[in-house]
Amino acid sequence: MTTLLDTINGPDDLQSLTVDQLTQLAEDIRQTITHSVSRTGGHLASNLGVVELTIAMHRAFDFHRDRLLWDVGHQCYAHKILTGRRKMFERLRQEDGLSGFPSPAESDCDVFTVGHAGTSIATALGMALGAEHNGTDEKIVALVGDASIVNGLSFEALNNISLVKRQLLIVLNDNSMAIDVTQGAMAGFLSRVRLSHTYEDIRKTTNRMLEHLPLIGRRMEETLENVKKTLRMAISPSRLFESLNIAYFGPVDGHDIASLIDLFKALSELDRPALLHVYTKKGKGFTPADDNPCKYHSTGPFELNGESETPTGGERTFTEAFGEGLAELAGRDDKIIAITAAMPDGTGLAKFRRRFKNRYYDVGIAESVAVDMAAGMAKQGLKPFVCIYSTFLQRSIDQIFQEASLQNLPVVFCIDRAGAVGNDGPTHHGLWDIGYLRIWPNVVIAAPADEWELHRSLELAARSDSPFVIRYPKDTVPAESYSSQIPYQIGKSAVLREGDSDFVLVALGWPVGQALQAAEQLEQDGLSVTVVNARFAKPLDEALLEWFRMGKTVISIEDHGIAAGFGSALLEKATETARKENDEQFLDSIGRTVLLGAGDVYLPAAKRSKQLFWMKNTADQIVETVKCLKYQPEKVDS
Amino acid sequence: MTTLLDTINGPDDLQSLTVDQLTQLAEDIRQTITHSVSRTGGHLASNLGVVELTIAMHRAFDFHRDRLLWDVGHQCYAHKILTGRRKMFERLRQEDGLSGFPSPAESDCDVFTVGHAGTSIATALGMALGAEHNGTDEKIVALVGDASIVNGLSFEALNNISLVKRQLLIVLNDNSMAIDVTQGAMAGFLSRVRLSHTYEDIRKTTNRMLEHLPLIGRRMEETLENVKKTLRMAISPSRLFESLNIAYFGPVDGHDIASLIDLFKALSELDRPALLHVYTKKGKGFTPADDNPCKYHSTGPFELNGESETPTGGERTFTEAFGEGLAELAGRDDKIIAITAAMPDGTGLAKFRRRFKNRYYDVGIAESVAVDMAAGMAKQGLKPFVCIYSTFLQRSIDQIFQEASLQNLPVVFCIDRAGAVGNDGPTHHGLWDIGYLRIWPNVVIAAPADEWELHRSLELAARSDSPFVIRYPKDTVPAESYSSQIPYQIGKSAVLREGDSDFVLVALGWPVGQALQAAEQLEQDGLSVTVVNARFAKPLDEALLEWFRMGKTVISIEDHGIAAGFGSALLEKATETARKENDEQFLDSIGRTVLLGAGDVYLPAAKRSKQLFWMKNTADQIVETVKCLKYQPEKVDS
Repeated sequence: MTTLLDTINGPDDLQSLTVDQLTQLAEDIRQTITHSVSRTGGHLASNLGVVELTIAMHRAFDFHRDRLLWDVGHQCYAHKILTGRRKMFERLRQEDGLSGFPSPAESDCDVFTVGHAGTSIATALGMALGAEHNGTDEKIVALVGDASIVNGLSFEALNNISLVKRQLLIVLNDNSMAIDVTQGAMAGFLSRVRLSHTYEDIRKTTNRMLEHLPLIGRRMEETLENVKKTLRMAISPSRLFESLNIAYFGPVDGHDIASLIDLFKALSELDRPALLHVYTKKGKGFTPADDNPCKYHSTGPFELNGESETPTGGERTFTEAFGEGLAELAGRDDKIIAITAAMPDGTGLAKFRRRFKNRYYDVGIAESVAVDMAAGMAKQGLKPFVCIYSTFLQRSIDQIFQEASLQNLPVVFCIDRAGAVGNDGPTHHGLWDIGYLRIWPNVVIAAPADEWELHRSLELAARSDSPFVIRYPKDTVPAESYSSQIPYQIGKSAVLREGDSDFVLVALGWPVGQALQAAEQLEQDGLSVTVVNARFAKPLDEALLEWFRMGKTVISIEDHGIAAGFGSALLEKATETARKENDEQFLDSIGRTVLLGAGDVYLPAAKRSKQLFWMKNTADQIVETVKCLKYQPEKVDS
Repeated sequence: MTTLLDTINGPDDLQSLTVDQLTQLAEDIRQTITHSVSRTGGHLASNLGVVELTIAMHRAFDFHRDRLLWDVGHQCYAHKILTGRRKMFERLRQEDGLSGFPSPAESDCDVFTVGHAGTSIATALGMALGAEHNGTDEKIVALVGDASIVNGLSFEALNNISLVKRQLLIVLNDNSMAIDVTQGAMAGFLSRVRLSHTYEDIRKTTNRMLEHLPLIGRRMEETLENVKKTLRMAISPSRLFESLNIAYFGPVDGHDIASLIDLFKALSELDRPALLHVYTKKGKGFTPADDNPCKYHSTGPFELNGESETPTGGERTFTEAFGEGLAELAGRDDKIIAITAAMPDGTGLAKFRRRFKNRYYDVGIAESVAVDMAAGMAKQGLKPFVCIYSTFLQRSIDQIFQEASLQNLPVVFCIDRAGAVGNDGPTHHGLWDIGYLRIWPNVVIAAPADEWELHRSLELAARSDSPFVIRYPKDTVPAESYSSQIPYQIGKSAVLREGDSDFVLVALGWPVGQALQAAEQLEQDGLSVTVVNARFAKPLDEALLEWFRMGKTVISIEDHGIAAGFGSALLEKATETARKENDEQFLDSIGRTVLLGAGDVYLPAAKRSKQLFWMKNTADQIVETVKCLKYQPEKVDS
C-alpha cells in the first residue's frame, strides 16, 4: 500500500498538502520511525515528539537555503525522512547507511554534524552574524531542547545573542512533562511556567500571537511590546529570557501543525533574535511494541545523548559491571558520591541512585560543573566519582586541569564509551581521552580489561590521593578475567604469557583479550609471543621498558587513537630511559615499536567490531601484523 | 613609620578594630598594593576595587575555617596581605615568592589554586554539598565578578545551586561601571539595574535589608519573602536570579565596610543559597603614578585574566606583531573576522578593533561560544580568527573537536601565551595545546619562530580550508627572521644550518633561536650540528624523517610539555615509517631521539627565562645536552 509519505521526496512536496494531509503525514512518519528504529536502534521517544514541529518547520522555511541548527541532533529522524532520505532510513546508524545525527554529507538541509549538546544557539549566532556580513537574507533557526538549554555553552550563546541585529529564531522544544525529577533551576522555572497555565491558556496565547504577529514588521518594536503585554500569565515565562534581552514568545502547542506553520512564518519576519517556547510530548503516539516493551522503556527520559540500546544476547556490559561495582563499593564506604551529567542509565548509575539517593547527583547536561562540583566535594574529604562518557568529558578538560590535576584532588573519573563506539559514529567516539588526560600531572589512568580489573580499579580509585581515571569501552565484559591471578597495583602491568620469539604484545584495556587470542593463533603457527596487559596508561610501568632492553619488538595495542595515546607515551618514556642507558639493543628496539590504534581520521559509524578492525585491534589483525613483521625482508646497513 | 597595617598579622587582628580603623586599614592596604604592584607587575585596578569588601568578609567570617572561593583569583591581593602574607607581598609573582593567585600552599585561608574564570560558584556548590554530607557548619562564600558570572560554567553552577540545602553565599562583585561597551545580555541586565536607581536607593536597600535580616533565621522563608517585597525597584534586579530560584539581595555599596560586615553576618545565617549583589569601583583610590602612567593605563577594564604588563625594554612582542599582522591582512581581505573572549588587549586586537569595528567581536569570558560562533561564521564563508590564550582555549576543546575539526571548517586559532608564561605560573601556562590539538584530524598547527613566520602563517591561515592553529609565546620577537629565505609552506620544515656531526636540533617555534645559538657555541667547540626549524607540529614534514634515515641523533626542542607534544608526534611518525622501511640505521636512530620540553610537573611562577631553563630549552642547555650525548660512554651489545 502506498502511503502519503511515499510521495514525499523532499520538503518541496510538503508545500501543496492540506493541514489534514500534513496530520496524516505525521502519522506515516511516526510509523516509519517506530518500525525502523525497532530494528536499527536509535532514539525513539524524542523523535516521535518532534514530528509535527519538523513538518511545520519544513513548511514555513526552505532548508535548502534557510539554515536549521539541531541541538544534540538525535531528534532529526523526521527531518531526514522529509529531506530525500526516506528510502535510506532503514539503514539508519549502519555502516554506509544514514548517520543517526545530522550530516551535511547526506543532505544540503543539514548544516553541522552534531551529537553534543548546547551547540545550536552558538553556531546559529555565528551563522546569523555571517549572514549579516554577507548581506544575505536566509533565515536561521536553532532547535534546542529543554535539557540542552541548561548547558553552559547555550547560556554563553544566549548571553551574546544580541550581537545579532537580524532574524534568528530559537525554538525551545520543551518536553519536560515526562520528567519526574526536576533537574536544576531552569527546569524548575520551565516547570513552574507549565503548571501556571492550562491547555486553554496555551491556545489563547497562540491565538493572540497569531492575531498580532502579522502586524510585526521590521523595526516595529512598539507593536512587539504590545503583543507581549497581551501575553502575561501568572508566572511570566518571558521573565527569565527577557532579563537576558531575548524576545520570548509562547508557550505554544508543539503538535498543532497549522498554528506552528503560521507562528514560524510570522516570527521569521522579525528583524531580531526571538525565542519560541514549544511544548511537545516525548514519545507521542507510540504504543510500546508487544514483543519488546522493555527495550523501549529503557530509553530513559534523560538519555538525550548517544543511543541507549543494550547489546543483543544479554551479555553483561562494562557499564553494568561498573554500576554494580560502584554500588557495592559505596555500600562499604559512605564517602563515595556519584555524579552524572544527565546520563544516569547510560553510565550505569541506576542501581546506585536507588540505593544511595543522598549520595547521587545529576547536574543535567553540564559536564563542566560536574567536575568542579566533584573537586569541591573532594576538598571536603568526600570521594566523588564523576561518570561521564569519554566524548562528553571533552567538555570538562579545563576543569580536570585546574580543579583536579593542579590541586591534585582525588576526583575519580569513570569514563564509559572510551574507545570506538560503533553506530553512534564520529561525534561520539571515545578515542582521545588518554591524549587529553595524560598531559596533566598527577593523573592516574587505568584501563581495565575485564570486570575483575574494573572492580579492582574502583577500589584503588576510592583509596587514591590523586585524580584517578578509569576508562572502559561500550562493550561486553569477557566471561572470565584475564589476569586476576596477578595483583592489581597502580602503574603495574601484568605479563599474561611469555613467549620465546622477539614479539611482545602490550595491550591496554579491551584489546588484551584480542592479544591473547592472537598469541594462541600464532602459537599454532609456531610463533610464541609474549602478551602483557599494560593496565595503566599513566603512570607507565617501568617494567615495560624491560622488553625494549631485551631487544624485543613491542607492539602496543589500544582502543584509542595513536596520536598522543598509550603507545605514544611508551615511546616517550622508552627514549628518555634509553638515552641514559645508551644501550644499542635498547635503542634499536625502540625504533621497531609498532603502535596499533585509530589513525588520524574520523572512523565512520559502523559496528564497533568493524571499527576495531580498522584500528587493527582485532586478534586476526594482530596476527597479521606480527607475521608481516616476522617475515618482512630486513634491510641491513653496513 | 608604623602603619596600622603593620600590626595586622592575620585576620584575627581585625576583630578588635573600629570602623574608622578599618577604613584607615583599607587606605594602608591600597598603598601597599599600589606600591608593590608598581614594581612586581600584576593586577592593580581590580585589587584596589575589593579592599573594603575583603576587609568586611574577613571581619564577618573566619576563613581559617569558613571557605572563601575566589573567581579567577586575580583580585586576592588584599586577602593575601590580611592573611599573614604581608611581608612576602613584595615578592608577589616572583620565583619562590607569592603566587599572583590564591594558593593553598601559602595559607589555609586559600582553598583552590585558581586563575581561570567561572569556577568559584561551581566549586562552592561542591564544597557546600560536602559540608552537608559531613554535617559541618562552616560558611561557604564564593566571590565572583560580573565578568566571570557570564561564563558557561558559572551558569551551570547557578542552574544547580538549589541542590544545596544549607548556607552558601555568592557575592557578585559588580564593577561594570568602568566598562564602556556592554558585553552580552547579563552585562546589559546589570547595567539596566544600575541605571534604574540612585545611590540613595542603594543606601535604602542596604538599610532595609539590615532592618529585616536579623529576623531571618533558619527556615524562615516567609520572612525572607517579606524582606524581598520591601526591596522592589524599577527594574527588579532579582528578576533574573529569582527566575533561577536564587535568593537575590542588593545591590549594595561595596565600599561601605560597616554595612557590608552587618550584611555578611546576617546573610551567613540563611539556610539556603543566596546572592548578594555588590557595587565596587575598579581602581578605587588610585592616582596614576607620575613616573609611568602608561603602564597603569594599559590595564584595560576587561583584562581580568592573566597580567597585562608589557615586557621591559620596549621590545616588540609576538602579541604586537600578531595584532599588526592580522590588521594588515584584514585590510586586504574583508572576510577576516576577529573574535576575542574578553581579552582584546592581551591578545593584541586593539588595533584591529579600532580599524575594523564591524568585524570585531568580544563574547566576554566565554571561550566555548567564541569557537562555535566562529564555526558558524566559517560555514557562511567568512574567515574567523579566534584569539585566545593557550590556557583559556582549554575551555573550547570540545568545540574545536566537533564544530571545527569534525566539520573541517577553516576556523583560525591564534594562540597567544603558548609555552611557559613566566610569573603568572601554573594556572596560566600554555604548555599543553599541541597535545590537546594534534589529536584532532584536519587541524594544522603552526608555531612561528619569528615575526616573518608569524605573518606568513597568518596569510596561510587566511587561505586555509581547514582549522588552522598558530601558537606563539609570551615573549619578544627576534630582531631578524631566522629563515625568511626559505619559502613558508604548510607542513614543511626549514633547514637553517647543516652540520657534519651526528646531531640534528629540530626546534619548533620560539626555541629555534636558541638552537641556532647553541649550534654557534658548539661550532666554536669543534662540533658542527644541524639546525632545523620544524615550523609545523601538524602535519609533520616527511623530510624530518630523513634525519633518522641518515642515522642522526635528533634532538627535538619545544616550548611545550614533552607528553603528547611535538617530539612525541615525531616519534610516532618515525616508528610508523621505519617499520615499513625496516632499515637498521633508521630504527636505531629513532631510539636515540631526545625530547626537550616541560616534564610532567607544574612549573612554578618564575621568570619565563627560568622556566625555559627548567625545560632545557635554552641555548646553554641545548649545548650541554649535545655534549652529554657526544661524550657519553656507549654500551655496545654483542
